[in-house]
Amino acid sequence: MTATLMDGRALSRQLLDATAERATAFQLAHGRRPCLATVLVGDDPASHTYVRMKVNRCAEVGIESRRVDLPASTATEELVGLLRDLSADPRVDGILLQHPVPAQIDERAAFEAIPAGKDVDGVTGASFAAMAFGDPGFASCTPGGIMRLLDAYEVPLRGRRAVVVGRSAILGKPVGMLLLGRDATVTYCHSRTVDLAAHVREADVVVAAVGVPELVRGEWIKPGAVVVDAGYNPGNVGDVEFDAAAARAGLITPVPGGVGPMTIAVLLSQTVDAAERHAQG
Amino acid sequence: MTATLMDGRALSRQLLDATAERATAFQLAHGRRPCLATVLVGDDPASHTYVRMKVNRCAEVGIESRRVDLPASTATEELVGLLRDLSADPRVDGILLQHPVPAQIDERAAFEAIPAGKDVDGVTGASFAAMAFGDPGFASCTPGGIMRLLDAYEVPLRGRRAVVVGRSAILGKPVGMLLLGRDATVTYCHSRTVDLAAHVREADVVVAAVGVPELVRGEWIKPGAVVVDAGYNPGNVGDVEFDAAAARAGLITPVPGGVGPMTIAVLLSQTVDAAERHAQG
Repeated sequence: MTATLMDGRALSRQLLDATAERATAFQLAHGRRPCLATVLVGDDPASHTYVRMKVNRCAEVGIESRRVDLPASTATEELVGLLRDLSADPRVDGILLQHPVPAQIDERAAFEAIPAGKDVDGVTGASFAAMAFGDPGFASCTPGGIMRLLDAYEVPLRGRRAVVVGRSAILGKPVGMLLLGRDATVTYCHSRTVDLAAHVREADVVVAAVGVPELVRGEWIKPGAVVVDAGYNPGNVGDVEFDAAAARAGLITPVPGGVGPMTIAVLLSQTVDAAERHAQG
Repeated sequence: MTATLMDGRALSRQLLDATAERATAFQLAHGRRPCLATVLVGDDPASHTYVRMKVNRCAEVGIESRRVDLPASTATEELVGLLRDLSADPRVDGILLQHPVPAQIDERAAFEAIPAGKDVDGVTGASFAAMAFGDPGFASCTPGGIMRLLDAYEVPLRGRRAVVVGRSAILGKPVGMLLLGRDATVTYCHSRTVDLAAHVREADVVVAAVGVPELVRGEWIKPGAVVVDAGYNPGNVGDVEFDAAAARAGLITPVPGGVGPMTIAVLLSQTVDAAERHAQG
């Protein structure tokens, strides 16, 4: 292995520590803790695990969490109604709707019930547009975490070729827009892309965000390139063929311990941001 | 010249005719014409020309226009207040704020004062996100016109390489998202891109949307590629070196008479769309 590991655990720990300090300062100033509402619909075991991790991390850094679990049979209207109630509640600073929701729910309609000021998970159209236009707003947490990792390792982006594999609304599309905002030349690849290998071979920065185990082969990686693996598949396998990629890359994120820990840290940091803004009126 | 011209004048005429029929039907059904409010700030001659063209086209197709001209010294708050008034006015179906506005105005704040349902020019963050996510909404007019041109000439997009030169909020970024939504592999190039030529040489579809005369050289065009020139520079010069590009391309838009006429036609078509939706409550 020639690549240096991008240590998301260590960087997320720094961000969590800073967030804890800010949460304490907020409580001293305002007599209450910042508050994140988590909304989980249904029985998906992985989603339950993710929400539990987020709630635990909240407790660690001094953020109050309000957990709402809804049955798998919940209708869109019920979920939207709940999200509107949380939106109107002055004690709630941020709202997280755990993705994915059961199939009968219009996920986009649910996301859009969250006002931009409480969208600490960065899932609304308004947050996406803010990321795309370089305006103030909350980043989608995984893309925001990826940018923090790139910055921590001083990865140059201006004029570099970035290839994003995947085009989801909360990961691939926003991370591409954030890279574009930093003056990278950005290519979006996806399931319909012809000759993915040819695109990856040209990339200075590769972000794999598609959820297909080891789709990105190590031999495709340009020597010295930066490889960010935002995939997480069963068995601790990412979207990148790790060993072979690490033999060629300059920097690479491990799975687990790379992008994953950053996501929660950004969520909590943005929750304190939201609380501070709300307190300022 | 080997390329076939993509005739935006003819296609826009078809769309304007269809829009006129729908405007007439709307008037018969609802006792009023669809109404577009145009807002122009300042004295820029080109902007005055564009607004006059839009108002004239409205009259031709049976859309009422309400023209508001504001002095160059207008503050953001005044402009936002006016846009909110127009937003609240039930007789106004669509609102166009002519771009660009004078430098002291926060253009993004002004755009965002337009509600999604009246954003027939497709300039708000909500409209951008809808384009990016494939949700219902109004397209930015030039990107929407480009997609209609590509479809009219039956240009295949799935799996094809599309290169967008330019990344503005109302042209480059949204047209890239629309192409991505049609399963093209999309690369955003811009002023910081290293070796633009290399990107264009690989492109099956090139969209030039940057406002630099003849930036895209003809010799870069892959033989048989589709070239869409959304640039419009003084002297009827586009962003593409036309003659040399037309010698290699399969399809190419002329300047003028290509993308330009489509923009207004899409604006008016979307104004009738908005009126119909408002009438349905």
